[in-house]
Amino acid sequence: MLIAFFNTVKRLYKGGIMKIQNIDKITNCRHLNLYEISYINQKGIEKSWHIASRADKPKCVTGQFDMPDAVVIVPFHKKKDKLVIIKEFRVPLGGYQYGFPAGLVDEGEKIQQTCIRELKEETGLNITRIKKISPPVYSSSGMTDESVSMVYVECDGKPSNKGNEDSEDITTIFISPPEASELCKDSKIKLDVKTWLVLSSFAESGRV
Amino acid sequence: MLIAFFNTVKRLYKGGIMKIQNIDKITNCRHLNLYEISYINQKGIEKSWHIASRADKPKCVTGQFDMPDAVVIVPFHKKKDKLVIIKEFRVPLGGYQYGFPAGLVDEGEKIQQTCIRELKEETGLNITRIKKISPPVYSSSGMTDESVSMVYVECDGKPSNKGNEDSEDITTIFISPPEASELCKDSKIKLDVKTWLVLSSFAESGRV
Repeated sequence: MLIAFFNTVKRLYKGGIMKIQNIDKITNCRHLNLYEISYINQKGIEKSWHIASRADKPKCVTGQFDMPDAVVIVPFHKKKDKLVIIKEFRVPLGGYQYGFPAGLVDEGEKIQQTCIRELKEETGLNITRIKKISPPVYSSSGMTDESVSMVYVECDGKPSNKGNEDSEDITTIFISPPEASELCKDSKIKLDVKTWLVLSSFAESGRV
Repeated sequence: MLIAFFNTVKRLYKGGIMKIQNIDKITNCRHLNLYEISYINQKGIEKSWHIASRADKPKCVTGQFDMPDAVVIVPFHKKKDKLVIIKEFRVPLGGYQYGFPAGLVDEGEKIQQTCIRELKEETGLNITRIKKISPPVYSSSGMTDESVSMVYVECDGKPSNKGNEDSEDITTIFISPPEASELCKDSKIKLDVKTWLVLSSFAESGRV
């Protein structure tokens, strides 16, 4: 209560709370666009901030924060007793990155359905149990409104590339805690930050 | 070895490996821009992919993957025996987000310097020990080349807003494992994905 009171005093003293004024779409691309947001800072001065968004209208316009743009799947292969990651060509990095299977949630699709579909398409593996689904959480809120749900699953089956699209170049890899430890220290490879965090914890505790 | 061989055969069968052809900058903004990358997919067909980048030339052009764009600081306050997070107004989300202190690495700055500067500016706290620095890892490689280093530190001092900029509206919060558990389940708040992952692990193990 006391902290909340002091924060209110601080904001009044500074001239007010931050406020979004206007949003302009400044590109017209299919999957990703740049927007200029004008806002009032705590001194009452109008400023602008550029963001990238996958949505036709960014979430700060629609207020639709309840569904994630994408799922990030953390698959544990019970029979192999290993975590599953993929090595995938990522066009934005111009090379291969190690990361978890992931994909955009299609229109009208439930999170569970996206996970079953994407894990099958990218690795050929089958989900046997969904253990935990995170709320939508934000990828990099300084530059985008993109959100993902982290989904922890158990899976079985053998890896296959049959479901890969023509722009997907994917190798499925099974990871033990010592192998996770090696990957996390390797500065020569490219690794997704979420994968680095889960693998670091898996390397230390042996659990996900 | 055998897997590598089969992957090579698979790629030859599909018509070749993925290859970047050309990159066009399609906006001219100060802090963030949109680029169109044309590439050859595995069927030999030219396709395009849009990415957002903070750099004047994206990393897939410069090949400069060795320095992160930003640091994400995981601060543990020894005297309070709690993790430190911030509640901050994020313009791209049009509201408050819970996350770790973070900031862009300035030109010529060392990662350690960025961490000391940013933690002080955003929270008023002082770093007493840097425990671990991750290699540059990628925020969301389907849409951007942005990379961050995760930096685990110990800190002391009292929270202060004196170092905040006019566009920073920040409250510093100390978190115990049970409080971390509550935050991670709360679908009404906005939480950064890296923070969600570290807090989930902290809630379970009591350690970072």
